[in-house]
Amino acid sequence: MAQVDLNCDMGESFGVYQLGSDMQIMPLVSSANIACGFHAGDPSVMRKTLETAVSQNVAVGAHPGLPDLVGFGRRNMQISAQEAYDMVVYQVGALLGFARTTGIALHHVKPHGALYNMAAKDKALACAIARAVKDIDPLLVLYGLAGSELIRAGKEVGLKVASEVFADRTYQADGSLTPRTQPNALLQSDDEAVQQVLTMVTEKRVKAVTGEWVSLDADTICIHGDGVHAFSFATKVREALLQAGVEIKTM
Amino acid sequence: MAQVDLNCDMGESFGVYQLGSDMQIMPLVSSANIACGFHAGDPSVMRKTLETAVSQNVAVGAHPGLPDLVGFGRRNMQISAQEAYDMVVYQVGALLGFARTTGIALHHVKPHGALYNMAAKDKALACAIARAVKDIDPLLVLYGLAGSELIRAGKEVGLKVASEVFADRTYQADGSLTPRTQPNALLQSDDEAVQQVLTMVTEKRVKAVTGEWVSLDADTICIHGDGVHAFSFATKVREALLQAGVEIKTM
Amino acid sequence: MAQVDLNCDMGESFGVYQLGSDMQIMPLVSSANIACGFHAGDPSVMRKTLETAVSQNVAVGAHPGLPDLVGFGRRNMQISAQEAYDMVVYQVGALLGFARTTGIALHHVKPHGALYNMAAKDKALACAIARAVKDIDPLLVLYGLAGSELIRAGKEVGLKVASEVFADRTYQADGSLTPRTQPNALLQSDDEAVQQVLTMVTEKRVKAVTGEWVSLDADTICIHGDGVHAFSFATKVREALLQAGVEIKTM
Amino acid sequence: MAQVDLNCDMGESFGVYQLGSDMQIMPLVSSANIACGFHAGDPSVMRKTLETAVSQNVAVGAHPGLPDLVGFGRRNMQISAQEAYDMVVYQVGALLGFARTTGIALHHVKPHGALYNMAAKDKALACAIARAVKDIDPLLVLYGLAGSELIRAGKEVGLKVASEVFADRTYQADGSLTPRTQPNALLQSDDEAVQQVLTMVTEKRVKAVTGEWVSLDADTICIHGDGVHAFSFATKVREALLQAGVEIKTM
Repeated sequence: MAQVDLNCDMGESFGVYQLGSDMQIMPLVSSANIACGFHAGDPSVMRKTLETAVSQNVAVGAHPGLPDLVGFGRRNMQISAQEAYDMVVYQVGALLGFARTTGIALHHVKPHGALYNMAAKDKALACAIARAVKDIDPLLVLYGLAGSELIRAGKEVGLKVASEVFADRTYQADGSLTPRTQPNALLQSDDEAVQQVLTMVTEKRVKAVTGEWVSLDADTICIHGDGVHAFSFATKVREALLQAGVEIKTM
Repeated sequence: MAQVDLNCDMGESFGVYQLGSDMQIMPLVSSANIACGFHAGDPSVMRKTLETAVSQNVAVGAHPGLPDLVGFGRRNMQISAQEAYDMVVYQVGALLGFARTTGIALHHVKPHGALYNMAAKDKALACAIARAVKDIDPLLVLYGLAGSELIRAGKEVGLKVASEVFADRTYQADGSLTPRTQPNALLQSDDEAVQQVLTMVTEKRVKAVTGEWVSLDADTICIHGDGVHAFSFATKVREALLQAGVEIKTM
Repeated sequence: MAQVDLNCDMGESFGVYQLGSDMQIMPLVSSANIACGFHAGDPSVMRKTLETAVSQNVAVGAHPGLPDLVGFGRRNMQISAQEAYDMVVYQVGALLGFARTTGIALHHVKPHGALYNMAAKDKALACAIARAVKDIDPLLVLYGLAGSELIRAGKEVGLKVASEVFADRTYQADGSLTPRTQPNALLQSDDEAVQQVLTMVTEKRVKAVTGEWVSLDADTICIHGDGVHAFSFATKVREALLQAGVEIKTM
Repeated sequence: MAQVDLNCDMGESFGVYQLGSDMQIMPLVSSANIACGFHAGDPSVMRKTLETAVSQNVAVGAHPGLPDLVGFGRRNMQISAQEAYDMVVYQVGALLGFARTTGIALHHVKPHGALYNMAAKDKALACAIARAVKDIDPLLVLYGLAGSELIRAGKEVGLKVASEVFADRTYQADGSLTPRTQPNALLQSDDEAVQQVLTMVTEKRVKAVTGEWVSLDADTICIHGDGVHAFSFATKVREALLQAGVEIKTM
């Protein structure tokens, strides 16, 4: 039976600032990527988010980002591979602290925003991140963009990897995402998105904007956690997968 | 044979900013308290400091502080017990990440500056910190001011504790440190300080500024790591202890 | 004719984080206190908020806070008077930069949260803040709690001051606010709050929780900008004042 | 008579962290670029540095940087032009606050590190920065790399500009600096550097690494303020200029 993981970025509130609908989305996903204080999140938010995930049997992962709170970790920064290694160890370690206090093991690591995007293309950065994850715990699963340098680097160091796909983004003939700067970067309707997810998960391929079919691994689907639309869309994707007989579980 | 631990705050550099003489002091101490990024330190400094400590067989501890980089964690902040718990878990966890990458176990936790001072007197804060340490790893040793609430809280939750004394500070009749705001807060000469250390370690007592002898535990001595004088003073203390037949080793 | 100023803390969003209902509340008030990046706000939020205030003829003031983003500037910090002076100059200056780009003059300064509360009681801190405001621009109006050290300090250095009162808080016999830790700190209904505002503005007195009438200056009323209730309550206060023939305008 | 400005980055200490030799270098220069708290500096350091500059009749300028304290503002960040505008206004404004308290006028603005380098090549960023400076005060002088987009943008908006040259860096045939990644980026000796400075100031040209003579404006020379060598080198440059009859004064 086909299976897939649904993951969502969580714990991205900060102090008095609320972001996302963690309590609503948590029951719909199998994996939670918890922000670690650099791009979002703070120690108290991390603890509460981890406790919520644990109480709902959702796998807990770290979601390390660039040290850019005001930019929400979305602005590329010219960091060295060593700096990437160090900031990943620091952030995953911080979440590991909270995992220890609840007696659970961390399940995975998924870099955030600009760090995720840079690691998809920059081999040195990808290797540094993969090594950081491996060095902390070789049983951690590394989440990265399907077909990316990060996935390659994770495999190379011997980590289990999860190739991530996006429900609402379009793909190009080389398997990469259509850049958001282009008009056709997003699918137009929920129905198209749900259909794309089903095809990716069950057929391991996606139709590019130029019409070709492209093979890709689809181990985990990124569910967006904020926006008014988030909950209803996540519910649709989940229902469609279950109806198609796909099991939703973490890797 | 008498024994005592010499500990020093380390890894308090940040980015391009250098602070302390870690490389000089490291060979003289048995325990290093590594800053964790809130009052000082950054991920790269933490990694390098931990590697240096490990290479010299110095026990590695976390040195969590208040989130006040510009004030170096020395300004009291009105935080809740829960916030104290969360910020200790976060910071100890972050260092735990680096410990995992080198395969060593963390040895101890010593709060920094204002957090240390507040936890010496505030029972609720002390308990929160002790619980945080216990919840992360019950084998960690909790360092605190001799006779403080933090030491009491550590014992209560079942942690091994290390009562810290200061070589160059004077003591009051109740065993507390003379506040720095008072003129006689500091001993006047290295010789007096060295003599006080020997008495504290071998006789487990100290002469108060008012003349009385006060009993106190002296498991570990705080060695200052910065200032031009730091290295020579640390050397004197170390030599005097060794000559008196005191073994210098971590708890 | 009686007149009063309605002020509201504004520009407390940060990066992707939204806080408050600035666009809704702005038309209701005569003065906006704009956060300056320490407890909340960022450069882009400051610019947009200032532009909005200017476009609606609302007086623009600086709202400097403690350097504690995660605590929203609400946690007391043991800062020196000199540090208070410097952080006020820095933050008011930053907003002054934006004021210069739009060609307006800053109108007032109101410290935020813990800085406001500490400056209400701590004479040295109050004087430092008053001097900072005076040194930047002697025409700035200093907003502070009615009857506080900050108001006294402002008068002493020759600043125009605005004594602030709160619609929904109860007062004690000495004119101070009932601490939030006490059960009767807040008035129970909107009607009581509106009535209290009218009495304070038109009679310059308030009935304490213990029954006595207490004199107080009520130059400006603090309107809360967040919470679902904020807009409707602000509207009620405004309407009641206008119906009672009170003119709403900045000082 | 030929004249030139000597400028130095100042006020780059932060909290307990000391950086640079401001007190030593200040008497040697005609312009001080004061860090504004994003890449370095804090409110207290800014005040003290400004006071020192004022007391020695050194022109005071703002030295705004990227919001990257741990990276000292040296890592490129993918910021928008609007973000650049806003962060420059904020930082120049903050220093303006301190200038107001001492009654002096700010003299210039020189972006720091990665912001300076990015603005040298990126026209949109350069224009945003030039506009920010102009909007705060059209009398401010904009400092930028000789021949850069920033200098062009400053001229376009009608600002007075200061073309900056480097004593110890080599130049390429197109007038740009040899990248630091290349082995011949730096001149080998103090004598060569001093000679290059003299030639640039008096002949308005420099010999490229490939042998050609390149014309360039040399309104101001960047003097480095840290490193053991800084003071003696700055002294040499200053002496050589004075002996050659060049007047050292700010623009």
